[in-house]
Amino acid sequence: MFTKGTYTFEPNFAPEKYVFVSNNDEGLKRFVFDLSGMGNLEIDGQGSQFIFNGFLCPFLIERSKKITVKNLSIDFKRTFHSEGTIIAAYKDSLDIAFSDAYPYNVQNNKLMFTGDQVIGKDNGGEPKRVNYPFWHLLEFDAVKREPVQTAFDYLNVQNMVVKDLGPGRVRIHFPRLKGSVGNTLIFNATDRMVPGFTVSDSEDISVRNVTIFHAGGVGILAQRSNNILIDSVKVIAAPGRMVSTAADATHFVNCGGKITLQHSTFESMMDDATNIHGVYVKIMQIISPNEVVVKLMHYQQFGFDFLAPNSKIEITEAESLITYGETTVVKAERLNKEYTRITMKNPLSSKVKVGDVIASSEQYPDVLMKNCSVQKNRARGILLGSRGKIRIDGNYFHTHCAAINLEGDGRYWFEQSGVRDLTITNNTFDNCNYGFMLGLGVIMVSSGIEEQKKAESRYNRNILIERNTFKIFNPCILSGYSVDNLTFRNNKIENTTAYEFLDWFKNMNLKNFMLTNSSNLKIEQ
Amino acid sequence: MFTKGTYTFEPNFAPEKYVFVSNNDEGLKRFVFDLSGMGNLEIDGQGSQFIFNGFLCPFLIERSKKITVKNLSIDFKRTFHSEGTIIAAYKDSLDIAFSDAYPYNVQNNKLMFTGDQVIGKDNGGEPKRVNYPFWHLLEFDAVKREPVQTAFDYLNVQNMVVKDLGPGRVRIHFPRLKGSVGNTLIFNATDRMVPGFTVSDSEDISVRNVTIFHAGGVGILAQRSNNILIDSVKVIAAPGRMVSTAADATHFVNCGGKITLQHSTFESMMDDATNIHGVYVKIMQIISPNEVVVKLMHYQQFGFDFLAPNSKIEITEAESLITYGETTVVKAERLNKEYTRITMKNPLSSKVKVGDVIASSEQYPDVLMKNCSVQKNRARGILLGSRGKIRIDGNYFHTHCAAINLEGDGRYWFEQSGVRDLTITNNTFDNCNYGFMLGLGVIMVSSGIEEQKKAESRYNRNILIERNTFKIFNPCILSGYSVDNLTFRNNKIENTTAYEFLDWFKNMNLKNFMLTNSSNLKIEQ
Ligand SMILES: [Ca+2]
Repeated sequence: MFTKGTYTFEPNFAPEKYVFVSNNDEGLKRFVFDLSGMGNLEIDGQGSQFIFNGFLCPFLIERSKKITVKNLSIDFKRTFHSEGTIIAAYKDSLDIAFSDAYPYNVQNNKLMFTGDQVIGKDNGGEPKRVNYPFWHLLEFDAVKREPVQTAFDYLNVQNMVVKDLGPGRVRIHFPRLKGSVGNTLIFNATDRMVPGFTVSDSEDISVRNVTIFHAGGVGILAQRSNNILIDSVKVIAAPGRMVSTAADATHFVNCGGKITLQHSTFESMMDDATNIHGVYVKIMQIISPNEVVVKLMHYQQFGFDFLAPNSKIEITEAESLITYGETTVVKAERLNKEYTRITMKNPLSSKVKVGDVIASSEQYPDVLMKNCSVQKNRARGILLGSRGKIRIDGNYFHTHCAAINLEGDGRYWFEQSGVRDLTITNNTFDNCNYGFMLGLGVIMVSSGIEEQKKAESRYNRNILIERNTFKIFNPCILSGYSVDNLTFRNNKIENTTAYEFLDWFKNMNLKNFMLTNSSNLKIEQ
Repeated sequence: MFTKGTYTFEPNFAPEKYVFVSNNDEGLKRFVFDLSGMGNLEIDGQGSQFIFNGFLCPFLIERSKKITVKNLSIDFKRTFHSEGTIIAAYKDSLDIAFSDAYPYNVQNNKLMFTGDQVIGKDNGGEPKRVNYPFWHLLEFDAVKREPVQTAFDYLNVQNMVVKDLGPGRVRIHFPRLKGSVGNTLIFNATDRMVPGFTVSDSEDISVRNVTIFHAGGVGILAQRSNNILIDSVKVIAAPGRMVSTAADATHFVNCGGKITLQHSTFESMMDDATNIHGVYVKIMQIISPNEVVVKLMHYQQFGFDFLAPNSKIEITEAESLITYGETTVVKAERLNKEYTRITMKNPLSSKVKVGDVIASSEQYPDVLMKNCSVQKNRARGILLGSRGKIRIDGNYFHTHCAAINLEGDGRYWFEQSGVRDLTITNNTFDNCNYGFMLGLGVIMVSSGIEEQKKAESRYNRNILIERNTFKIFNPCILSGYSVDNLTFRNNKIENTTAYEFLDWFKNMNLKNFMLTNSSNLKIEQ
């Protein structure tokens, strides 16, 4: 229990731990609230503001039970991303003005964002100042306070040529760089080192009435944990800022039990409002009929150990995402953060081949998302990838890309997905996917299935879309493939002119329903 | 025991450990030979060649006793530094040609060195290729195969503007960049992640008849260890390369017992042949008369825990390096890799102030260096900073900067030094300090003592220099200050014209003996 007030936390004396956090970056990190191995604990901020300085993580909840964090706000003295105003535009270059909130320097034509902390000296004897590296640019509309409709991500921009124009102003050059004077350019963080909440291997965790103004990674990340309640949480930009968290508002990996997101606001993130999925490991070597070496493939999944003895697993063809085997792990030997050698109860199917993938076939949550609002962020609304019962009810979405995305793949991000029981009811979809940066469709299936396997695969199944309102400026409501048993009925569709119907849409033969290679579609308009 | 042959080690399945290695970079690292917690072990390569691929550390010897490694060579498939040939020179820019041994790419005017390994994908979905970052340039003479006499380090060059000139050729731009066509430009590694040998908290360790062609850090690093024998070791550049290790050949931090370097060759390193010193921590807070919070100051010292209960410590004024107190640690509480809170047996002297430094007053080695050869490397020969008995006898030095350097300071590198019993006999100093990049003098004292404290301080004491041969092209044999009791006698001094006596030397009033603020100097020429 904290007396209401503003608390500032400095990293100097904080304890540190090496943690592997899925969809964020691993590392030796400092934590202010390390609630590891605890039970029946409630932290009540009573309305306090918590301000963190530097690479300092607010909450770690590891191997804990019954933990509640409530009535507080989280912000950082210096954000991990930086925001500049576009003050002039030329061919392939922009002039940007930065306020004092985003200190930087330009050396040898390179822009480096800094903070006020120094960590020793470098080998040349110069002070080694804490650096806030960036690698990604995106333009936000100054009035709508959301990504510009026609803006695209500029990635790998860390080495762009930059000229110092004197106090607070720089000129940046990058091939095909564009932007409008008066808008805000976001320089997003390279790494996701500082999530707001890191929850691992825990149970019955609640975050209630908490405002997250910023995090240098995902706002609330839970992995291998059961029963998570996000209630009356606000992820929103602080006054004077365009952006809230540098990555997703929430993210759940191999979680079980029930995940509830309710009465919450997810705004202005640099990524999705939530992403709920499992993890696939890739088969690298088949040692014997029941022994394989598997590998975690994405570097932000390294160290994600989930193949414990007795866990039930599925074996899935990477190209089609068709599961052709299920068995149980008998023995797991972790070789390092990437490789694990596992022994299985049953011999592998004769279909098995190096490159196919393995995931848990039992660790899935039921999901309820109710009375939430998602807007002003980059990318999607919610990514749903659980085999459990998923209910998305009574929410408001006004999203840059798809509002609801069913993704998952075994060759790229290695996120296990594939819904089995998804109900989408009573939501308002307000001109979603206006940015069309990651595909078409308000509700979109974009699982990683090879073209020639789509006819055969049915990765997402049993979807009911009912009593929603779709406000659309382009006709595409549903897009995707390889779906079985989808019902769309009693929804209201309203055409708007809220966004420009761009020229290039006109040749795309856009329709309301663009599902291919699917079965049992019951679409009632 | 290995059957003689060539063994190649890949990092894929290697076990990993988070290690803090002084004067190198901390990190989660993979090791091929993890000899931790072992005793009475001999690894005999019988003349084998060990080739390591990627960020893979050869040897870890932690909390071990009586370990011998012998009869093998260590090299890396892709070196951590890169070497290019200067093929054209312009104002502030050079054209460089790289062989296939140094793969790279140029993106957005930035040069990145790569290897053949891929570690997952980045957030843009592109393969994340292992990167060999560089931050330092130095020109080597193609004929003499040593740093160019007038070359200086270019530091922080990682962001220099680079133009791709087609296969194997780039044009690099940097303010005041110079070089001669035909010479080799070394792009040295930013980090020291991969020392050849990491020896911690161990005893009776021998490395014999081992050739180290390369390491991505120090060749042999020992910390908090006693009795180390380096016998018939060669640190040399592999055929076709200009440079051997990316940092010092050997380095000893807070070691005790006896360090012996004999019958060994140290050539072509990007730093010194050896550096033997302790570590100072800085007093950050005085909590009570016998309680302080101290901090490790250099980031390559972070995690260097040496303040265990019962260890004897000295308290030293940072500006003068004068020790004004000695006591014993009663309790040590590590807060994190930077900060430790210690309780001492005796109350602090009234002189104590925040900013002063603490080091061990008992963990010093005796040192014998005999029949070794040091040449062709960047920087110094040997840095001696032990209070024990030091004998430097019968060696050959032809070094870029000082052959023997007494350094140490409490405000910059935080390396404890200050000799008490140093004998330098029967050595040949062959035109040493031809590069004059880090001060003058074949034997040089450059401890970090404030100008106004030099008269009072006597940091280095009891030095005998006898029966050596000094071949010199510039007169300065001894330089420095704050020395007590130095005898120079029966040495042979031969003047040479091996290097250019540069114009700027002429105004410096160079003399053979340039010791100031010292007492009891007995110099017989
Ligand atoms: Ca050195």
